[in-house]
Amino acid sequence: MASQILISEVGPRDGLQNLDQVLPTAVKKAWIAAEAAAGVTEIEVGSFVPAKLLPQLADTAEIVAFARTIPGLTVAVLVPNAKGAAAAIAAGAHKITLPLSVSETHSLANLRRTHEQVLAEARAIADLIAALPVEQRPHFEGSLSTVFGCTLEGAIPDAQVMRLAEALMQAGCDEIGLADTTGYADPAGVRNMVRMVRDVAGAAAVTGIHLHNTRGLGLANVLAGLDAGLTTFDSSLGGLGGCPFAPGASGNIVTEDLVFMLEAMGLDTGIDIPKLLATRAILAEALPDEPLYGFVPDAGLPLGFAPAIARPQHELEMAV
Amino acid sequence: MASQILISEVGPRDGLQNLDQVLPTAVKKAWIAAEAAAGVTEIEVGSFVPAKLLPQLADTAEIVAFARTIPGLTVAVLVPNAKGAAAAIAAGAHKITLPLSVSETHSLANLRRTHEQVLAEARAIADLIAALPVEQRPHFEGSLSTVFGCTLEGAIPDAQVMRLAEALMQAGCDEIGLADTTGYADPAGVRNMVRMVRDVAGAAAVTGIHLHNTRGLGLANVLAGLDAGLTTFDSSLGGLGGCPFAPGASGNIVTEDLVFMLEAMGLDTGIDIPKLLATRAILAEALPDEPLYGFVPDAGLPLGFAPAIARPQHELEMAV
Repeated sequence: MASQILISEVGPRDGLQNLDQVLPTAVKKAWIAAEAAAGVTEIEVGSFVPAKLLPQLADTAEIVAFARTIPGLTVAVLVPNAKGAAAAIAAGAHKITLPLSVSETHSLANLRRTHEQVLAEARAIADLIAALPVEQRPHFEGSLSTVFGCTLEGAIPDAQVMRLAEALMQAGCDEIGLADTTGYADPAGVRNMVRMVRDVAGAAAVTGIHLHNTRGLGLANVLAGLDAGLTTFDSSLGGLGGCPFAPGASGNIVTEDLVFMLEAMGLDTGIDIPKLLATRAILAEALPDEPLYGFVPDAGLPLGFAPAIARPQHELEMAV
Repeated sequence: MASQILISEVGPRDGLQNLDQVLPTAVKKAWIAAEAAAGVTEIEVGSFVPAKLLPQLADTAEIVAFARTIPGLTVAVLVPNAKGAAAAIAAGAHKITLPLSVSETHSLANLRRTHEQVLAEARAIADLIAALPVEQRPHFEGSLSTVFGCTLEGAIPDAQVMRLAEALMQAGCDEIGLADTTGYADPAGVRNMVRMVRDVAGAAAVTGIHLHNTRGLGLANVLAGLDAGLTTFDSSLGGLGGCPFAPGASGNIVTEDLVFMLEAMGLDTGIDIPKLLATRAILAEALPDEPLYGFVPDAGLPLGFAPAIARPQHELEMAV
């Protein structure tokens, strides 16, 4: 198990895209700056989609430009196609993620694209990136969404998942992401999936996972991912985003709880938990009607809790 | 990892003892009967403590007598001392648990007893049991409470935990339980603790754990316990019990979510999830002001979900 873990905060993208309201650009900037100041080193700040589809994310180019001014921060964005990727590159994103739903039914329903059409976009994005000077090339992730099952199709055959992972690598992706879009994953499934996709894409190309907490298994699935060797985990401040069920049922896993678990295990996230918790106030003020989730924010830290960085090395080795 | 897992439902004891109201005896019976009918094979039905301290559990003897009439059900109770154990034996409990808080500060605050005084009670209970005919002897568990840390003392030294585990075995316990009374446990800590206590008590004597979900890590800690070889997990229907924080922050882990996770992993709990979910209606009707927690009850089962028992054996082997 790695001792350093990367938390990729997806709230400004995944958290906001489902809201009825549009968070003001200034608030987004304050949120991103505060999380970065708490030690978060990768933030998915938006998505390059038509503003008429997602007005919540219409300011993504401005947000990317702002986020790039924060030293040490990896600025990630989601794109649905090569047109979005071109905009992401123009704005200066460090990392571009293209989702490919392994359920073709879901892909057609959500993106109105077949698998082959999405793969063609992936190839076009890879071409755009290859045309850039090496030092300007963003990292390109192809993310397998609904990979643990689809609300329309149910379980997706392993062979189909592996074929699509291979196709994304052949299209020119640097990395394959795994996304439990539907909250269907369980720990055994996570371990299997990581092993399986690494078999076709290589271990170095499969390091991250996007988990939801729809059925309460989010952190157990993180633990399974850690055991399988993953080192990057997506999460959302306050569990904001994709929240179809209440109470307590957030879509995204809660960054605060995730960081607590990892640090309690002696894994170094680089994130200051009290500072991270304080960041919630920005959302609470700007989105007073949105529930903010999280157990640790309510329960507080255990008495005498010490983050990984403050603990003696021999204790950490024992703990892991 | 074992393929069969025992869920020990603790709601009728741990769930009810913190309520302001007293659940009628008839409702308790209906609840216990319904859970047993859903496939739950061990239920902690009450506690033999003075009725003036816990009026919620004053009918424990009657509940034990009722629960014993349910075929195949292990009827467990908590006792604070030898007097309670004598009552439990008279009522016919199959399993008796004596908690010993590894934090002496907590032990004094909650039970007004030192470690040595609790160990003396353990020896007296073992003597009571030894005086019974073999076929009438209940299983005797000594449960190490606050074992992952105490809200008054913080972390408890490993040496103290090991000394007390050994002392409980020497006092005559059949089994050592681990209880995260405070919700301080993390997955690395669970793995360490199981290894450590097994070192002194033997693997066969350390099979179960009582976890809380106070900081959202309940199911991740279950996974860590599974990996460490544990096979018995306490939980509470609807997460009832010990619920100091809201929203979503239950004290006990939620039986429904726990069973879902295990069955999704291909582990056989013997529990029918739809029947288990239907059991919630009994609590919802009888305790309309108490929040019932759980993600799976809100989100439902994944499309095409099959419990462990219904899946082909080769798939289960792959999954685990």
